[in-house]
Amino acid sequence: MNENCLFCKIITGVIPSSIVYEDAEFFAFLDIHPVAKGHTLLIPKTHHVWMHDTPDEILAKAFVTAKILMNTMRANIPCDYVQISVVGKDIPHFHIHLIPRFFNDTIPQSPTVNYSSDEEMKVFALKLANPRN
Amino acid sequence: MNENCLFCKIITGVIPSSIVYEDAEFFAFLDIHPVAKGHTLLIPKTHHVWMHDTPDEILAKAFVTAKILMNTMRANIPCDYVQISVVGKDIPHFHIHLIPRFFNDTIPQSPTVNYSSDEEMKVFALKLANPRN
Repeated sequence: MNENCLFCKIITGVIPSSIVYEDAEFFAFLDIHPVAKGHTLLIPKTHHVWMHDTPDEILAKAFVTAKILMNTMRANIPCDYVQISVVGKDIPHFHIHLIPRFFNDTIPQSPTVNYSSDEEMKVFALKLANPRN
Repeated sequence: MNENCLFCKIITGVIPSSIVYEDAEFFAFLDIHPVAKGHTLLIPKTHHVWMHDTPDEILAKAFVTAKILMNTMRANIPCDYVQISVVGKDIPHFHIHLIPRFFNDTIPQSPTVNYSSDEEMKVFALKLANPRN
């Protein structure tokens, strides 16, 4: 609980929200700036700024909970599938976006870039390689 | 394992890829159409079409593994943070996108829509409400 955090204030009800889901550890509510109607934010009740700050156990339960919400969304809201995104640069409290999508909707795909060469791509792969040995 | 699945063929090496990570259950490689250089796809070795088809245990481990890759990315690739997305309409094998991002990069945010009224927003929240009682 962080007293300056907008999402912590939503959890406690100091700031009202359109609640979708709540249990002992998680809270979900409608995004007030939806990419599509029904766009939901799922957050842990504990305050962690980034996904990479969030303890594994909470992270694991968060995405399993997202799957539950995803299936409710698929059952009850017109959509072909549900997109999940974690960005996090806006509100500093780890949150999962759930966005109802249609195959033929007009939400644009992000533009892509090209590696300058196969060699450059290999350099990136090597930088990211993280064997568990 | 699905013999018609592009990603299953990447796991077995029938189709080559720039491998970033592999363990008994998961495989990660560079997206060949990256939104940013270093853009990685993490997949379970078992074939599940959608995130909502994926068993909870695999899903939970997948996102904890994504956090490991995210931290490697943050350490080794120039970026301010790492975005996670699950879309899934392109390749029918559940996959997690990991995209290195800068706060001031030019990747556009998705456009937003408005609820026509507070009442319509309440209707959506009620459709999504899924109490565990």
